[in-house]
Amino acid sequence: MAAPWSKACEAMERSIRARVPPMLTDLYQFTMAYAYWNSGRHNEPAVFELFFRENPFGGGFSLFSGVHDCLLFLRNFGFTEEDVEYLRSVLPPATNPAFFQFLRELDCSGVTLRAVPEATVVFARVPLMEVAGPLAVVQLLETSLLCLVNYASLVCSNAARFRLAAGPDRKLLELGLRRAQGPDGGLTASRYTHIGGFDMTSNVQAGFLFGIPVAGTMAHSYVTSFNSLEETLRPADGEKDPIDLISLTKGILGRLCELLGAEPAKIHEGELAAFLSYAIAYPGNFLPVIDSYSVNCSGLLNFCAVAMALSELGHRPRGVRLDSGDLCRQSVEVRRVFKLCAKHFSIPLFESLIIVGTNNISEQSMMELNKKENEINVVGVGTHLVTCTRQPSLGCVYKLVEVRGNPRMKFSEDPEKSTVPGKKAVYRLLDSEGHPLLDLLCLSEEPPPQAGQTLSCYPLGQEAHLAITPTQVTCLRQEVFSKGQITQPLCSDAECRDKVQRSIQNLDPRHKRLQDPEPYTVALSDKLHKLIAEIRRGTSAEGKFLLTN
Amino acid sequence: MAAPWSKACEAMERSIRARVPPMLTDLYQFTMAYAYWNSGRHNEPAVFELFFRENPFGGGFSLFSGVHDCLLFLRNFGFTEEDVEYLRSVLPPATNPAFFQFLRELDCSGVTLRAVPEATVVFARVPLMEVAGPLAVVQLLETSLLCLVNYASLVCSNAARFRLAAGPDRKLLELGLRRAQGPDGGLTASRYTHIGGFDMTSNVQAGFLFGIPVAGTMAHSYVTSFNSLEETLRPADGEKDPIDLISLTKGILGRLCELLGAEPAKIHEGELAAFLSYAIAYPGNFLPVIDSYSVNCSGLLNFCAVAMALSELGHRPRGVRLDSGDLCRQSVEVRRVFKLCAKHFSIPLFESLIIVGTNNISEQSMMELNKKENEINVVGVGTHLVTCTRQPSLGCVYKLVEVRGNPRMKFSEDPEKSTVPGKKAVYRLLDSEGHPLLDLLCLSEEPPPQAGQTLSCYPLGQEAHLAITPTQVTCLRQEVFSKGQITQPLCSDAECRDKVQRSIQNLDPRHKRLQDPEPYTVALSDKLHKLIAEIRRGTSAEGKFLLTN
Repeated sequence: MAAPWSKACEAMERSIRARVPPMLTDLYQFTMAYAYWNSGRHNEPAVFELFFRENPFGGGFSLFSGVHDCLLFLRNFGFTEEDVEYLRSVLPPATNPAFFQFLRELDCSGVTLRAVPEATVVFARVPLMEVAGPLAVVQLLETSLLCLVNYASLVCSNAARFRLAAGPDRKLLELGLRRAQGPDGGLTASRYTHIGGFDMTSNVQAGFLFGIPVAGTMAHSYVTSFNSLEETLRPADGEKDPIDLISLTKGILGRLCELLGAEPAKIHEGELAAFLSYAIAYPGNFLPVIDSYSVNCSGLLNFCAVAMALSELGHRPRGVRLDSGDLCRQSVEVRRVFKLCAKHFSIPLFESLIIVGTNNISEQSMMELNKKENEINVVGVGTHLVTCTRQPSLGCVYKLVEVRGNPRMKFSEDPEKSTVPGKKAVYRLLDSEGHPLLDLLCLSEEPPPQAGQTLSCYPLGQEAHLAITPTQVTCLRQEVFSKGQITQPLCSDAECRDKVQRSIQNLDPRHKRLQDPEPYTVALSDKLHKLIAEIRRGTSAEGKFLLTN
Repeated sequence: MAAPWSKACEAMERSIRARVPPMLTDLYQFTMAYAYWNSGRHNEPAVFELFFRENPFGGGFSLFSGVHDCLLFLRNFGFTEEDVEYLRSVLPPATNPAFFQFLRELDCSGVTLRAVPEATVVFARVPLMEVAGPLAVVQLLETSLLCLVNYASLVCSNAARFRLAAGPDRKLLELGLRRAQGPDGGLTASRYTHIGGFDMTSNVQAGFLFGIPVAGTMAHSYVTSFNSLEETLRPADGEKDPIDLISLTKGILGRLCELLGAEPAKIHEGELAAFLSYAIAYPGNFLPVIDSYSVNCSGLLNFCAVAMALSELGHRPRGVRLDSGDLCRQSVEVRRVFKLCAKHFSIPLFESLIIVGTNNISEQSMMELNKKENEINVVGVGTHLVTCTRQPSLGCVYKLVEVRGNPRMKFSEDPEKSTVPGKKAVYRLLDSEGHPLLDLLCLSEEPPPQAGQTLSCYPLGQEAHLAITPTQVTCLRQEVFSKGQITQPLCSDAECRDKVQRSIQNLDPRHKRLQDPEPYTVALSDKLHKLIAEIRRGTSAEGKFLLTN
């Protein structure tokens, strides 16, 4: 019984209130807010932009996620009396007391957020969010918004890459909770890896809150907790007589050993007991882990014997899990034995048993797995997926681009770190096949580019200008928050998940290949390019230097 | 006003209840619990151990953290009616309804936890926690306990390494919230990096909840939000007349340019306006970021001018922050100018200004910084610290070692992955200088080793046995939870932080060096070594194989 979407939204809003109070931010946001307030500038209209400078994992694209959480954060933004008292204790004693009254009354009613929709394919250096409002307020929002967007986008992008590496048909199971960076890291990972393309999670709370399908059967500890068949002799429900099942299974085991040339003396009794007790508990959900001792000498035989006994009794066993060693090689051998059993013992359902593989899977090993012969139907991924070992942080930044209608720009010795000034509109130009061709940043007052009309622009990081004729033009960002209200309905996670796959499908293969992708073009309009040049030359009013004489 | 410890504990307990419900676990814990229950084994006394197999970051030691959170989790463990209804919806329909009644009544009153105390120096393969209790219950705890311990220990160990790399005197500031793996990842990081050796955090909520000193002054956006000196002319309090300060500062700037041979035309007016307005707001806390445009041509001159004006007016400026480029080289130049000003303008406090460095600092760059000439007093560290880029997951595991008094062992093709069976006692043997010499794992029924008496043991990973005579013997684990109660007072974070530094100091330099440390010896008692050999040979009752004939 998955939670309905409205209930999930309520739970998420409660969770955001508890986990992301406006105090979850850097102290300097408050010291700056006070300095703005003290110089009477706190209500000046300002515009910040949120973006990242490089696509993660050496890739050619990313997925933008966490927008919904940001909206719930904005809607609930406000300081408690206790918060304000704490702030008073850490700011210098000379801080004007009226500032704390200002903080008490603060909310986001003056803030307007324009954002790329949740779960959209995006590219480096495109401003994904525009946060406009009173200078002191939009400054205060920086750290919390970055924190909500950075990891959600990173782990969603990571999941999308695992999905590309795995191919469209293999089922993917997320099981990283125990290795995640904290409990909430685990929950966030389960949610956004599902949106990014995973099918299931092992995380029960994620299933409970977000309606993600949950999966899992048994750990090695279950297997090793059994020592002998005597331990299966005490079913609580008393409906089935396990003694019969034991005799039946032992008989089958004998025939299996003959068929496969296996040694009965190497078969672990405890493992058989574990499988039997599990099969008694879940006759319709029998999928044990078969490598606690030895797959070939014990686990596979015990599985086949119990599964055959189950199917004789009219049940449908599901399959096996492999959790160590060479998963591909073992899966091929396991499948061979399944087919042999299906034929030899005339049990057709043995043809359709599933094989689950879990063993420290990385994007690299997922790609290798796809190249090698294997019979794995479901892959479980944990640590590398949820902690994003290859690049554990996305590096989103939040930069001031306009104050009181005047463009602002940060220079830097490193040109990559300079910002693009001004309040903007962002368009995605599509080619005749519907593939994204180029993202165009314009000043917000410029007329939008028109489909079928050639326009001139300056690709970022290049000197030359480019003439381009889009077949279609879409506006990349939407107004999603204004006057204290969320102004667009929140898509459900399921809708987001569908959108991810559709947008990735729509992406040119040159940009979506996992290794050495071709960079996607992000360009400035002529006007924007000219403004930057003026500011750099100091001929714009925005590049004012101080003449001390 | 830092929160008192008892208040912090209450907040932490609330936070654990909200963030770590018992549903934050893997589904297979429930499917196994049902299978145990169904075969009548759920109340069998069982013992699990929690440990990790390798010290993180290629190091020779780790810090064990997260125990307090585990205790609060255990004390609050219990399912709501809503939880149970969800579980009923995801388990197979044939699941016996009486099992859900069993879940409703479940708590940790039967669980005993023995653990290494919070914030202790520990080593790979030593069982850090022993969780004993009814089989189904202690199985259900696995994922949550791992999740609480894994990241806390990892990030605390990372902080301790940064502290070693930085040396004892440099102040360390954690500022990773915006890049952390989710909001809670950020909060956990702030707390455990403080325990691991950081002095301050930028995270206000962490200061509020845990009493960690908070720090921070301004971002580049503050500087670039100002365009001209007119923007400082509107102080809210009206007490000071900023026009005077502007004239005063401009006069000083002229003299500074002469002294340093700088060009007035390259000095940014907006930057000066930003510094002035900040100085007006915080005359006693003036520490601006000086590289928004150019340190040498603008930022340093503007800082010195405003700082000198402040000191003429009787205030004490604090220093500067450098946030890009070669921090060491720049800090040396900045210090030279400070000293020159101190002498030339007779302002002694310019001798004691502090320099804060922040620019994507890693453990590697911290070590390099320590080797090069530099004048940095405070280092701020973000991404690499909180996301542990070098190894973003610790890899703690939770293994069954005993059921109904019988030792259990998991074999593996990879000897490193085999478990050490049996309920144990763990001792730390110290040498005559008080350095930890060896951690000894014994069976719990063995008499403890005695100081001054030679004992024989088997170091893990080696074949040969070892004779050793400890000067002192300490029992490494304590009973911390029993009969539903926390049985030891929780140390405050401040006490834990002190303990970390003391324990690391006490560690032999061979084990604590950051690169190529000498492995610390962890050994098995003769009895334990013999038990493993027996189980492997199958002569112990625990290695039972199935004879099918």
